[in-house]
Amino acid sequence: MRKNVLLTIAYDGAGFHGWQRQPSELTVQGYLERVMSGLFKTEIVLNGTSRTDAGVHAYGQRASFRAELGIPTEKIPMVVNNALSGAQKGAYAISPVRILEAEDMPEEFHARFDSVGKQYIYHIRNSQSVNVFDRNYVYHVKEQLDVDAMAEGARHLVGTHDFKSFEASGGNPRETTVRTIYDAVIDAQESTDPMGHSGRDIKLYIKGDGFLYNMVRIITGTLVDLGLGKIAPEEMENIISTADRRCAGHTAPPYGLYLAEVFYDISKLQD
Amino acid sequence: MRKNVLLTIAYDGAGFHGWQRQPSELTVQGYLERVMSGLFKTEIVLNGTSRTDAGVHAYGQRASFRAELGIPTEKIPMVVNNALSGAQKGAYAISPVRILEAEDMPEEFHARFDSVGKQYIYHIRNSQSVNVFDRNYVYHVKEQLDVDAMAEGARHLVGTHDFKSFEASGGNPRETTVRTIYDAVIDAQESTDPMGHSGRDIKLYIKGDGFLYNMVRIITGTLVDLGLGKIAPEEMENIISTADRRCAGHTAPPYGLYLAEVFYDISKLQD
Repeated sequence: MRKNVLLTIAYDGAGFHGWQRQPSELTVQGYLERVMSGLFKTEIVLNGTSRTDAGVHAYGQRASFRAELGIPTEKIPMVVNNALSGAQKGAYAISPVRILEAEDMPEEFHARFDSVGKQYIYHIRNSQSVNVFDRNYVYHVKEQLDVDAMAEGARHLVGTHDFKSFEASGGNPRETTVRTIYDAVIDAQESTDPMGHSGRDIKLYIKGDGFLYNMVRIITGTLVDLGLGKIAPEEMENIISTADRRCAGHTAPPYGLYLAEVFYDISKLQD
Repeated sequence: MRKNVLLTIAYDGAGFHGWQRQPSELTVQGYLERVMSGLFKTEIVLNGTSRTDAGVHAYGQRASFRAELGIPTEKIPMVVNNALSGAQKGAYAISPVRILEAEDMPEEFHARFDSVGKQYIYHIRNSQSVNVFDRNYVYHVKEQLDVDAMAEGARHLVGTHDFKSFEASGGNPRETTVRTIYDAVIDAQESTDPMGHSGRDIKLYIKGDGFLYNMVRIITGTLVDLGLGKIAPEEMENIISTADRRCAGHTAPPYGLYLAEVFYDISKLQD
């Protein structure tokens, strides 16, 4: 019986050229499709919810696929994860990609089209000292950031707006640049890095019904510019209303960004 | 004036084939020598204290070199770190290698031969769930470890012993396999990984006057075998006294190992 399976996938994006399959680059989708196709002896084509950029990480990417498999759906994570670990060199290898969950979905379900929202987390390290182990995982900002200004700026994002100012060129054409941000919260925690240097972990938690190309990275860069005093927090509304990318701040680097969660409307799927 | 300079160096070993220069592999020593030689327009040859294996990390490797430099010693970290960051791709890059400190030393000082001890830290993650971000940084052990058994085993190591049972073949010939361990402590902390899964960070802090080839990794593997109940803690003395590698436990993987600190006897250097 042909099933429609929804996977929840975590990955360390450091070694990958993003999610989307490319002919000659290592990507998460390409890697996972190759391993799964070999394992299940049938061509697996994944429909991912988010085309994360090179270096971007995921706690909970989602992808669906249709196939006839010889095993129960709940065994998929174990079987695929064993193959993924085996595909790595070294006896104790942890795979950079891991299936967290597999669920049977209705026949017409599609992981991307049926998604009603996503949460991203952006991780900034605000400290004098540079930690070599942060390299692929956080955006290091040396100058002291004004967290209150960043939090105030983030609050202006909440609601339904045209977010064209926060869209990079080069994305896929979209019908509209209007999106709804449900939540945009800044959290700051004092912490000591493994080198023994103190600093702050500043995280942006942002939830919305959808995001434009590079939108979270441009929002983060703009909030950092607010934190540095380069832009006043009350400017945020103007930046939105101009619908002009040049009015927003810089683009934060990919490696501080984590796709945290993808949401579905269960009641709608059950209709 | 020709100076003798001692560097303190941190590195993320994940992308390197260890410390020691090799003709056709990327190593920390080779990379740093190349960048520094270009920068100072004179051949820089580093004498490192520890030939860390491929994948092993350092919070505080030490290396000395003799050269005539055009800049004051205290400026070396800033100048070299700027070059190291610039040598990386991307506008916000953090270098995997970083000079933490540079000090002038007496003419005859040698970072390795004058070292009187080292501290290593070995990081184990003991949790049901596998975290993709741990991949290059901790040894993941799924089965619940008995931390008390591990701590008891570690205590047997303290003192002056022949550690031949904990030496891998393939190292450089040594005059003696007798070493003194000053301290071997197990620390366990409950913590939640970035994926939201709980578990324990178990760390071995081990300090000694010197370590044989793969000694910390074999000690760690043996302590894990104690923690798993495969070896009784009181066996530790027997394992030492047999002076037979086959009696000790498995070799823990390189990527959980951190060279934390190298010690010098300052009073001796000032004689």
